[in-house]
Amino acid sequence: MVGKSQIKLIKSLQLKKNRNLHRLFVVEGKKTILELLNSSLEVHYLYSTNEEFVALYSDISELISAVDLKKISSLATPNGFLGVFKIPISETVDLNDWIVALDAVSDPGNLGTIIRLCDWFGVKNLVCGANTVDCYNPKVLQATMGSITRVNLVYTDLIEFLATATIPVYGTFMDGASVYTTELPKKGILVMGNEANGISAEVEKAITKKIAIPQFGIKTTESLNVATATAILLNEIRRS
Amino acid sequence: MVGKSQIKLIKSLQLKKNRNLHRLFVVEGKKTILELLNSSLEVHYLYSTNEEFVALYSDISELISAVDLKKISSLATPNGFLGVFKIPISETVDLNDWIVALDAVSDPGNLGTIIRLCDWFGVKNLVCGANTVDCYNPKVLQATMGSITRVNLVYTDLIEFLATATIPVYGTFMDGASVYTTELPKKGILVMGNEANGISAEVEKAITKKIAIPQFGIKTTESLNVATATAILLNEIRRS
Repeated sequence: MVGKSQIKLIKSLQLKKNRNLHRLFVVEGKKTILELLNSSLEVHYLYSTNEEFVALYSDISELISAVDLKKISSLATPNGFLGVFKIPISETVDLNDWIVALDAVSDPGNLGTIIRLCDWFGVKNLVCGANTVDCYNPKVLQATMGSITRVNLVYTDLIEFLATATIPVYGTFMDGASVYTTELPKKGILVMGNEANGISAEVEKAITKKIAIPQFGIKTTESLNVATATAILLNEIRRS
Repeated sequence: MVGKSQIKLIKSLQLKKNRNLHRLFVVEGKKTILELLNSSLEVHYLYSTNEEFVALYSDISELISAVDLKKISSLATPNGFLGVFKIPISETVDLNDWIVALDAVSDPGNLGTIIRLCDWFGVKNLVCGANTVDCYNPKVLQATMGSITRVNLVYTDLIEFLATATIPVYGTFMDGASVYTTELPKKGILVMGNEANGISAEVEKAITKKIAIPQFGIKTTESLNVATATAILLNEIRRS
């Protein structure tokens, strides 16, 4: 049985301020929990309705009823597995490779997809401006599929970070130079902007090279979604 | 005031079978409605709580109350504008350029993003296997942002379509050849598979060239999301 104080703690972790206060976050789903257990992340505690699973992790888990799981889950239909993990301390950003930096990306699905893309393309550092959605948001975790354990996420003041960067800073703009003909060095920072407003005026000042993905269809005012644009640009960086 | 039979008809269009029966679909939101009005699509009728808008389109629209709009809207919070449009008759697929073909893509957000990508990269024809989510699903329309008016969508038996195709058929597979070193011709069919299962065994038989997007990070069993993979591949096709 899950005690009242545990229920209160786990439920409270649905809010970013409580996650930061306790340095804990929640993931649901067997596959992701197993990936996190096999990573450098530290587990706090596991809850499951599955006897076999609990027997396997007996020192750090508890068998609970479906009714109790429902009380601590953030899902409409809990899937039987809930893990509480410790938020890792971010590592120092290595400036010897490409880094992705996000300026107020607000959609959890987009952040989750971008974390997966960093993982795929071997980008180890993802720097998030303070206005970017929290990476321990349940919807982000659902979209990352375990990639979050392989990417170093750093939340910081993006303007300060870019001001001290000693490598070129690339950003996408409608009037930027075609990425096909732009020389992409071995290291740099790729800044991606907010879904509705793009890169902010303050961050724009730190951009050393404005680039664009060429449009081939009828010219419209539509832009590419931030996650698909990140996919194309990371591919361009790695293929070069 | 919206009559009972109109309410019944519009609500019924939330289901694919009724959309196909009446050859009508619903979009909500001023921006998308204006884009559709400025396209080759034919409008059936418009409803709005906005007097100015209704005055502008007086012959094809009706001013309605927020209460009535709520009755016909599929949104939890209707945005003031609802349009009913005629489903266009698909054009013949032009085999003189690249074509994207989808084998059971089931997530509406993914299909919406892929339609936007086809629009961006000037791919005029998108062939959807019968098991692909309906493009007039409200969630797809929300994600396409008007691009649907510029891409010819054809729902058909994918296996039959590929059997009669006279141009090369490309598909992504984990063990495919790197897309960076594969020669991409001026015309071809790019087949993208289902989110969970990839390309089906039946469709695989019609693939003439298996390709892959190289992975640069730690090798895992994770794959790229189908929409981000489509973004990268269309970029590769057009840049070549």
